[in-house]
Amino acid sequence: MASYAPGHAASQTKHHEWRTAENSAAHLLPHLDTLARTKPNLKLLDVGAGSGTISAGLAAHIPHGTVLATDISDDILTRAAAHATSLGITNISFQRASLPNLPFPDGTFDVVHAHQVLTHLSDPAGAVRELVRMCAPGGVVALREVDMHMWCFWPAVDALQKFQGLMADVLVANGGQDEAGRRLVSYALAAGVERKQVEAGFGTWCYSAPEDRKAWGGSMIERLKTSQMRSKGIELGIVTEEGVGEMIKAWEQWIENDEATLGIMNGEVIIKK
Amino acid sequence: MASYAPGHAASQTKHHEWRTAENSAAHLLPHLDTLARTKPNLKLLDVGAGSGTISAGLAAHIPHGTVLATDISDDILTRAAAHATSLGITNISFQRASLPNLPFPDGTFDVVHAHQVLTHLSDPAGAVRELVRMCAPGGVVALREVDMHMWCFWPAVDALQKFQGLMADVLVANGGQDEAGRRLVSYALAAGVERKQVEAGFGTWCYSAPEDRKAWGGSMIERLKTSQMRSKGIELGIVTEEGVGEMIKAWEQWIENDEATLGIMNGEVIIKK
Repeated sequence: MASYAPGHAASQTKHHEWRTAENSAAHLLPHLDTLARTKPNLKLLDVGAGSGTISAGLAAHIPHGTVLATDISDDILTRAAAHATSLGITNISFQRASLPNLPFPDGTFDVVHAHQVLTHLSDPAGAVRELVRMCAPGGVVALREVDMHMWCFWPAVDALQKFQGLMADVLVANGGQDEAGRRLVSYALAAGVERKQVEAGFGTWCYSAPEDRKAWGGSMIERLKTSQMRSKGIELGIVTEEGVGEMIKAWEQWIENDEATLGIMNGEVIIKK
Repeated sequence: MASYAPGHAASQTKHHEWRTAENSAAHLLPHLDTLARTKPNLKLLDVGAGSGTISAGLAAHIPHGTVLATDISDDILTRAAAHATSLGITNISFQRASLPNLPFPDGTFDVVHAHQVLTHLSDPAGAVRELVRMCAPGGVVALREVDMHMWCFWPAVDALQKFQGLMADVLVANGGQDEAGRRLVSYALAAGVERKQVEAGFGTWCYSAPEDRKAWGGSMIERLKTSQMRSKGIELGIVTEEGVGEMIKAWEQWIENDEATLGIMNGEVIIKK
């Protein structure tokens, strides 16, 4: 991809920084432990690392290994590097690179990780082929992608359901995938992987505790006020200014409601090379 | 509840036996470990234990504690007891009992667990109040309930989506809840629990590996052929004989499709007493 359509506005970045290796890459951690037992100095590639909070957590998890975090944006990588430095993490480096063609020879890495990357691509299966190419025999490719239709709201008010629809529609209008979460196995098979190499599961994010509602809901409100999602949605006729106002109000009420809960479902796949 | 509406046909029981403490009560296990460190002989009540495979796993997890598994059906408890015996598990006992009134004094148990129980009740908040009542101070109540609208199918063919709708509609027609998964926090608050006592999350089941597709899809086909869901759905005019036939065919194709995936989202709540 030539650019990251959602952009790196403060709202987007703030939400991304909530992510950790524990809450967003739990499917990979046991495989990392297994690989590190026989090869402590393993090499991990994190593609589309963004704010780099997951990358830093993965680096901390393999203290004798090394992480190379790539992204299409120099700006976000500078921020990611500062984050790692602030945590005293030194076994990580950063390099600008873009799918579908990454500048690394076949089998360079023991682990190739991509989180919320395929969702933004027009050829997700082609991207999986490239990720698998760079993985060494015996290694693993770990994928995790949201399914935009699996947002479980309570209360399930109309304006929040419409917000979910807006996000999905803008994603697709930008050339992305709204069902990547459920399609990870199909992408892997289309990329030439055999079914027996694939372990599939689903993981979730949950926003319900008051501080999580505030962080997530606040980020969604900022997106509605400032991000490309708003302008693109209005440009495409998916939403009106008035509709955006109703969504903002619905999120504000959701943040204040102690009953409120949001679960988001992500597909997770481990490909064993 | 006076009876378990879905029934204990072979299809229902077979699917229930796929469940383990690890794949269906992972949210409780760390709390069990914490409690067992200070009180190894802790007492756990498992309400609506059904086939008892989760109950047996919980008993194995607390070898110095005891599990009391209840259900409304003597037949299923006999089966559950045989399962525990076959595993050599001796720290478990069984007793017939029905919500909303269980015959145990306040604070009898250190842990009260209910899995896919509230979903079948007309007053889930009242049931939570009863579960909390039986939990001792310092203990935990652990709940896990499906959200019937959070089934993530690939391929998302029409007959499978209709099957999902049929299940939800029959559940509601039987007096149950189709959105229990997302409502657990609201039930807890309605039961008089304070928000700060509640930890909320979501867990999933995934059926994608060939053996899991066969087990799950086969169970759904058996249900369509023999269970109360079929007769009730036809009686209510939700589905026709022809529609049932299309659903069976869709499941058969789904089982054979190596791309096929199904993720099911469950709400999970820990209430700290």
